Amino acid sequence: MYVQIRAETTRRFLLEAAATLFDEKGYAGTSISDISAHSGRTSGAIYFHYASKEKLALAIVEEHFATWPHLISRYRQPGLPALERLVGLSFEVARAFRDDIVVRAGARLWAERKAIDAQLPAPFLGWIEAVTQLLEEAARNGELAADVPPAATAHGIVCSFFGLHTVSDALEGRRHIEERLRDLWTLLLRGLQAEPDPAALLARVR
Amino acid sequence: MYVQIRAETTRRFLLEAAATLFDEKGYAGTSISDISAHSGRTSGAIYFHYASKEKLALAIVEEHFATWPHLISRYRQPGLPALERLVGLSFEVARAFRDDIVVRAGARLWAERKAIDAQLPAPFLGWIEAVTQLLEEAARNGELAADVPPAATAHGIVCSFFGLHTVSDALEGRRHIEERLRDLWTLLLRGLQAEPDPAALLARVR
Repeated sequence: MYVQIRAETTRRFLLEAAATLFDEKGYAGTSISDISAHSGRTSGAIYFHYASKEKLALAIVEEHFATWPHLISRYRQPGLPALERLVGLSFEVARAFRDDIVVRAGARLWAERKAIDAQLPAPFLGWIEAVTQLLEEAARNGELAADVPPAATAHGIVCSFFGLHTVSDALEGRRHIEERLRDLWTLLLRGLQAEPDPAALLARVR
Repeated sequence: MYVQIRAETTRRFLLEAAATLFDEKGYAGTSISDISAHSGRTSGAIYFHYASKEKLALAIVEEHFATWPHLISRYRQPGLPALERLVGLSFEVARAFRDDIVVRAGARLWAERKAIDAQLPAPFLGWIEAVTQLLEEAARNGELAADVPPAATAHGIVCSFFGLHTVSDALEGRRHIEERLRDLWTLLLRGLQAEPDPAALLARVR
């Protein structure tokens, strides 16, 4: 039991050390010896926990993807209006992309997926599904403008959000991601809300 | 003169052969010998025209970026309403991303830029500037809703468009990019137009 907990802690420690390097230097730019030097553990110790660099990268991408269902389920709880929960969720995800090293590294490794010899999880579909459900709920509650089709709109929202991250990462290291996200929602909510008032909704969220 | 034209033709031939491989296998997955095998030219001939794999990748990315100013200047001509020109431009770019091998390869190499030891051009800024100008023109002509700020909105539009390409590439090899773009504009135009009627505008474009 104690050994198992210790092994879990070591695995997590190595995962975060590797994530720091993958985030900074990418998959091709990071070797197991770099991770060994950065973490202070031997290469043998790393291979004991993760059989290969591919497996380590895969574990980080899986951990990245595992972040979302838990977060989404919190925002599925009724209470606040569905559109407010959707916007609030997007800000929480944006902060995770900016601040959480495993999320950041997972995103970079996923973008470099064609260079990694491992089957990575399919992205975006879970998000499109979650956003569709929130928009359907918003439609049932009269928050959504009448002629907004939830599934096609959810696809557009997920694309916009993902593009925002890529552009913000490339141009400004994600420093202004929250202001940019606010501007994006100002644009999107004008077309989404039954009674458009993006500023009022955004003032209630975050 | 003849020699110069022939050299230009060979450079272009090699550029397209390399683009085909970079698009398919990425930067790390493609070697000069692969390009030699694919093009039927010797590695020496390739090095004669491009001093290194980095230089070849850089030439493709520069060629990709050079595609846009010419295209944008055509859509700057007055005539059709500015919002229609903006939407029309986006469809033309989407088709280039789907069908033009140098544009495709340039986009992939740009996404893998951290693995390439060369200074690549800064992306997005030219697009944000071009879209801002079209929105300003739309505002002057009364096509744009009153409280839409052109620069922040242009940023959101460029992000949405770029995200659409990434998602469409990952999920469906860009096969349905034109339908997806139509859905995205349906969402965006609802908030942009002074008198929202996305379906009518989209019917006039393409």
